[in-house]
Amino acid sequence: MSSSVSRHSGRRPDQLRAVRITRQYTKHAEGSVLVEFGDTKVICTASVSEQVPGFLRDRGQGWLTAEYGMLPRATHTRSDREAARGKQTGRTQEIQRLIGRALRAVFDLEKLGARTIHLDCDVIQADGGTRTASITGAFVAAHDAVSKLLSAGKLVESPITDFVAAISVGIHDGVPLLDLDYVEDSQCDTDMNVVMTGSGGLVEVQGTAEGAPFSRGEMNALLDLAQAGIYDLIAMQRKALEQLYA
Amino acid sequence: MSSSVSRHSGRRPDQLRAVRITRQYTKHAEGSVLVEFGDTKVICTASVSEQVPGFLRDRGQGWLTAEYGMLPRATHTRSDREAARGKQTGRTQEIQRLIGRALRAVFDLEKLGARTIHLDCDVIQADGGTRTASITGAFVAAHDAVSKLLSAGKLVESPITDFVAAISVGIHDGVPLLDLDYVEDSQCDTDMNVVMTGSGGLVEVQGTAEGAPFSRGEMNALLDLAQAGIYDLIAMQRKALEQLYA
Amino acid sequence: MSSSVSRHSGRRPDQLRAVRITRQYTKHAEGSVLVEFGDTKVICTASVSEQVPGFLRDRGQGWLTAEYGMLPRATHTRSDREAARGKQTGRTQEIQRLIGRALRAVFDLEKLGARTIHLDCDVIQADGGTRTASITGAFVAAHDAVSKLLSAGKLVESPITDFVAAISVGIHDGVPLLDLDYVEDSQCDTDMNVVMTGSGGLVEVQGTAEGAPFSRGEMNALLDLAQAGIYDLIAMQRKALEQLYA
Amino acid sequence: MSSSVSRHSGRRPDQLRAVRITRQYTKHAEGSVLVEFGDTKVICTASVSEQVPGFLRDRGQGWLTAEYGMLPRATHTRSDREAARGKQTGRTQEIQRLIGRALRAVFDLEKLGARTIHLDCDVIQADGGTRTASITGAFVAAHDAVSKLLSAGKLVESPITDFVAAISVGIHDGVPLLDLDYVEDSQCDTDMNVVMTGSGGLVEVQGTAEGAPFSRGEMNALLDLAQAGIYDLIAMQRKALEQLYA
Amino acid sequence: MSSSVSRHSGRRPDQLRAVRITRQYTKHAEGSVLVEFGDTKVICTASVSEQVPGFLRDRGQGWLTAEYGMLPRATHTRSDREAARGKQTGRTQEIQRLIGRALRAVFDLEKLGARTIHLDCDVIQADGGTRTASITGAFVAAHDAVSKLLSAGKLVESPITDFVAAISVGIHDGVPLLDLDYVEDSQCDTDMNVVMTGSGGLVEVQGTAEGAPFSRGEMNALLDLAQAGIYDLIAMQRKALEQLYA
Amino acid sequence: MSSSVSRHSGRRPDQLRAVRITRQYTKHAEGSVLVEFGDTKVICTASVSEQVPGFLRDRGQGWLTAEYGMLPRATHTRSDREAARGKQTGRTQEIQRLIGRALRAVFDLEKLGARTIHLDCDVIQADGGTRTASITGAFVAAHDAVSKLLSAGKLVESPITDFVAAISVGIHDGVPLLDLDYVEDSQCDTDMNVVMTGSGGLVEVQGTAEGAPFSRGEMNALLDLAQAGIYDLIAMQRKALEQLYA
Repeated sequence: MSSSVSRHSGRRPDQLRAVRITRQYTKHAEGSVLVEFGDTKVICTASVSEQVPGFLRDRGQGWLTAEYGMLPRATHTRSDREAARGKQTGRTQEIQRLIGRALRAVFDLEKLGARTIHLDCDVIQADGGTRTASITGAFVAAHDAVSKLLSAGKLVESPITDFVAAISVGIHDGVPLLDLDYVEDSQCDTDMNVVMTGSGGLVEVQGTAEGAPFSRGEMNALLDLAQAGIYDLIAMQRKALEQLYA
Repeated sequence: MSSSVSRHSGRRPDQLRAVRITRQYTKHAEGSVLVEFGDTKVICTASVSEQVPGFLRDRGQGWLTAEYGMLPRATHTRSDREAARGKQTGRTQEIQRLIGRALRAVFDLEKLGARTIHLDCDVIQADGGTRTASITGAFVAAHDAVSKLLSAGKLVESPITDFVAAISVGIHDGVPLLDLDYVEDSQCDTDMNVVMTGSGGLVEVQGTAEGAPFSRGEMNALLDLAQAGIYDLIAMQRKALEQLYA
Repeated sequence: MSSSVSRHSGRRPDQLRAVRITRQYTKHAEGSVLVEFGDTKVICTASVSEQVPGFLRDRGQGWLTAEYGMLPRATHTRSDREAARGKQTGRTQEIQRLIGRALRAVFDLEKLGARTIHLDCDVIQADGGTRTASITGAFVAAHDAVSKLLSAGKLVESPITDFVAAISVGIHDGVPLLDLDYVEDSQCDTDMNVVMTGSGGLVEVQGTAEGAPFSRGEMNALLDLAQAGIYDLIAMQRKALEQLYA
Repeated sequence: MSSSVSRHSGRRPDQLRAVRITRQYTKHAEGSVLVEFGDTKVICTASVSEQVPGFLRDRGQGWLTAEYGMLPRATHTRSDREAARGKQTGRTQEIQRLIGRALRAVFDLEKLGARTIHLDCDVIQADGGTRTASITGAFVAAHDAVSKLLSAGKLVESPITDFVAAISVGIHDGVPLLDLDYVEDSQCDTDMNVVMTGSGGLVEVQGTAEGAPFSRGEMNALLDLAQAGIYDLIAMQRKALEQLYA
Repeated sequence: MSSSVSRHSGRRPDQLRAVRITRQYTKHAEGSVLVEFGDTKVICTASVSEQVPGFLRDRGQGWLTAEYGMLPRATHTRSDREAARGKQTGRTQEIQRLIGRALRAVFDLEKLGARTIHLDCDVIQADGGTRTASITGAFVAAHDAVSKLLSAGKLVESPITDFVAAISVGIHDGVPLLDLDYVEDSQCDTDMNVVMTGSGGLVEVQGTAEGAPFSRGEMNALLDLAQAGIYDLIAMQRKALEQLYA
Repeated sequence: MSSSVSRHSGRRPDQLRAVRITRQYTKHAEGSVLVEFGDTKVICTASVSEQVPGFLRDRGQGWLTAEYGMLPRATHTRSDREAARGKQTGRTQEIQRLIGRALRAVFDLEKLGARTIHLDCDVIQADGGTRTASITGAFVAAHDAVSKLLSAGKLVESPITDFVAAISVGIHDGVPLLDLDYVEDSQCDTDMNVVMTGSGGLVEVQGTAEGAPFSRGEMNALLDLAQAGIYDLIAMQRKALEQLYA
């Protein structure tokens, strides 16, 4: 991998932005995390409700679902408020479906029991990679919510089967780059989001050619890069979760 | 006024919660403020657009409007996301109309020129008084946006004619209380929101009997309390705006 | 209070418009009133349903709620039909929430039993003060609905605890005026809606500075004026309700 | 036709209900009519706007369109407010499309010039036949609006080419009945709405078998009955329009 | 009837277009028919669900309802997709209500039992007469669905009481024409849709004057024409249903 | 690759279903294709409009966008009609965004000129793989629309830069399978959709672990399989496009 490429941030091609995971960010939710990937900041909350959606009634299993939003001025120019427009964009729905699938991949829904975990990922500042930051932060929020259920004796065994995190990668001027910020994202020919578990299993791979199509070789380079990045993210999740709270 | 009442927080009846006003909270908006009244936390951004709504076209004046939202888990129990439900509740619309009117009361819209300031007030944690905190924070965000227009030479004179802030007051067990938190708000017989300018003019008074109706005497006591609180808030706005930024 | 001001209608500053309350205006509703404040005409119906909304299920109490609408050509220029636009405006929602709160202030919902009274206030001609006329008329309609429940033996005791009526007041050229019509309403600097019970308790006070802020002294003058007007309105409600029907 | 049938109202089979047409019913609209067919009462307003919808831009012709609504408690049991539900029912849309077509049949849209007449038909009390009462009343309201355009010199020649009115007919126990009220409407096997011009031309015939299909003979009997009724209605429109107003 | 008129297709005034009814067109539905009237092509499916809508709960009878749609490019110029616009047009609702009524006229809903037949009529190519083709095809689809219920022993007796089919007729240059295609439909002064049973009973007659009003004589000529056409269509339905399938 | 796996259809693991591409399927659209992958049948139309969306105004380039829908009974059990529900599901939006991106990858939008190609993909029968069939068929429809623009002299050079097609692949019991039908799709642990150009470039790769995560080795096996399948599909597109039409 070329080491001579210069990123506008000065980062190496395989370098993550500064990542921070702040637990107990707001006080009401069972899990509440502020996750920051550089200037991208997302509040991820996990809310437990002792009900399941209609399609799971009397199945003896739980559910985990996600919603995603962006404050109108999280971005360079203000975008319309979805609540005022009266509907969520296709992009929003695509992202929240992705977050839900990613988290369900590491949940044993039968062990969760007949309850629902709602994950809300709200971007308060956007600088690229909001969906992957959301997944990475939502896992920690969900973990905290599960810990509360365990402490309260509502669960005797954790339904969480593995860690899960996500990162974006892309190719710019032929060089694979890890963790794209907004400027890089809009310059890349290829953009890929990768979701992976702690044991290295792929959960989602979504690669899109924005300009020229990409080759199998490029795809492999991107997946290598993503894997290393996700291992680092999972180490950070682990460390954040080790911290004790009163 | 009884001095023996005990508030669950230990505050005196005429005491505000700890108020913090953090400017430049997010990086994209022309004005961005995190305002905290105790555990109530609202992100207020001011966005400038060089357009006016249709009903003001070719009138040579500007406009200032507000939108309000709450993250689904800003509250004790999760509420539905308005964007997912496909419409804003009556409460949301009532609040955002109030914020808009309050801010327009201290703006000379002709001096603003043919542009719009959008104020977005998004509650990330709610503990009572979100609408009054929003007005108080939105003023600072709007002030920062105007400063940018002045620095950039887009305005030669500020369209801001006065300070404006707001506070809630209520009567609990016969005692008028300043700056109600969520628990107090739900216990009060009467709940009043007051918006006032720096020069002491009333902009909005919205008093509601939740239980028993209130008397003129009680109303006067509430307005006295509110006035003192608003003067304190305006002093804090002033101090926050004096701070220099790079 | 200056007596030299001239209102375009020739009314004295403290004079109500001609008020008429016509009961049994339409035939299907349990209560049906046409209320007229000068050229403002509102049909207020009260409908009883033997159900309560979900949030009150199994609480052994009733509910009272209001909806408000305006015929498209109730106003000078035709406005879009809300049913065709697919949503109610913020103004409509604000008004119907106000009417509901005002009426609930004089209802003992436990005595109402597990049923709902729906109040529909539909403006067929608007000339200012539609929300206060609605409250004043809706009370009479609700009273008639309760009388039917009493006659039918469905209630043994009235859940109505007091009379309630409402009026608008405003300041024009420094003079406080009672019961603003459309032209006056658009000229006033300050506009206030007051809801009060028969025993003189304040239920709602909503004062808004349209232009310059208002002082405490002005506020007091407006409340004095409103109180006298509301006492007159309640006398008219009382008289209307004394009339016997076959 | 059997003369021995007894209608619950005591009417003869070929007898209209008491019909009243009140012009200038509300004050803002260019035409405003209260039309009553027995207990069915509809406010019909005609509003003139000096614009045409997009699909007619630069065609040098005008447009005439209708909207229909019912107050929630115009009926025996309260129905949901369409504005609150967020959409108009199929029935509402069907009726307002019918009213528009019926009126356009007697308008020369080129002579109307590049303007639109909006007809709003709002049922304040329903007892069967609301759509035919609406057409009958809307014609008078539209006529008044045209008279205003002529008086104001905005039109030099009337675009109205003929009278138009409508009535419902049905078959009950084998007997054709004119002008069905609500009870009769729900008992009839066949229900037909007929729209006809002053010169006897058919504009719309909408016959529906609610129970058993109907024969050509029955259809003819119904059309005969409708024709006589419509001639009476047109005489009443004519008489109402002859009345002079200040 | 004049035989000298020339239709652009070369058809005689009383001649149907080529009609084709293809059963088992798609594989999942209980009944699935492609019906073609010349270039008008509609897929009609009948789906059985073992539930009834709320208003029929515990009434021991079934329901039959219809929905109608058009592919965006079924027409000459592309029309907006109703699902993307977020609502069905008035025209769509009018048509689907008509289809439902037409089919219910030949169903004994008590014999159907507590289940619902959903008819979906989706136009894949439009050339006039889509609603009448839909009714004609939907009957065959509904018949197939009933046959499946009979074969499966879920019904012991057919709830179908008669055949039903529909056709459009119109008057062009004074000549009554059967089965209008798109070009003819837009040229006709009068347009009528007729729904009739196999035993010759009228179910729906909807005649509309597009230009000049029509006379009773014209109406009779159109009904004669329609009746002959519908008898032909019912013969084709009968023949299609006689075909055996594996 | 194991040759011992048995697919319920009898296909080899690397075998496509019978694929048919029928051009000129409906008559109005500039391009109209029925594409069949076994029992999955999708009508793909391409409509040309001489306008561009607002965000491209005055940019001198064109646009290509896609919409997707499913007839309510295209599936085993009837699903709600999106037009009746009033909104498109997240799944629908995700798919139509994918189709649009896939086609834009082989279009030079500047060469297209200031016009829009709307692709409508409507599933009339679903048996798995509807999105990949849609892309494959939409390319042929778009190609036909471009040919019309070239023939009409509206374009002098084709904006199409390459072929594009798509296929689904998945892993079932450890065996990679090509072109999943509905039953296989619901049994697979991993499901991947691949979009590729004629020159072998990857346009989209969307892999999702439905059950257990997948490994890099499995991912590679799936991509190999997909590539072979897509080459076959492109050969079929090529052959379909060679056919001459009058």
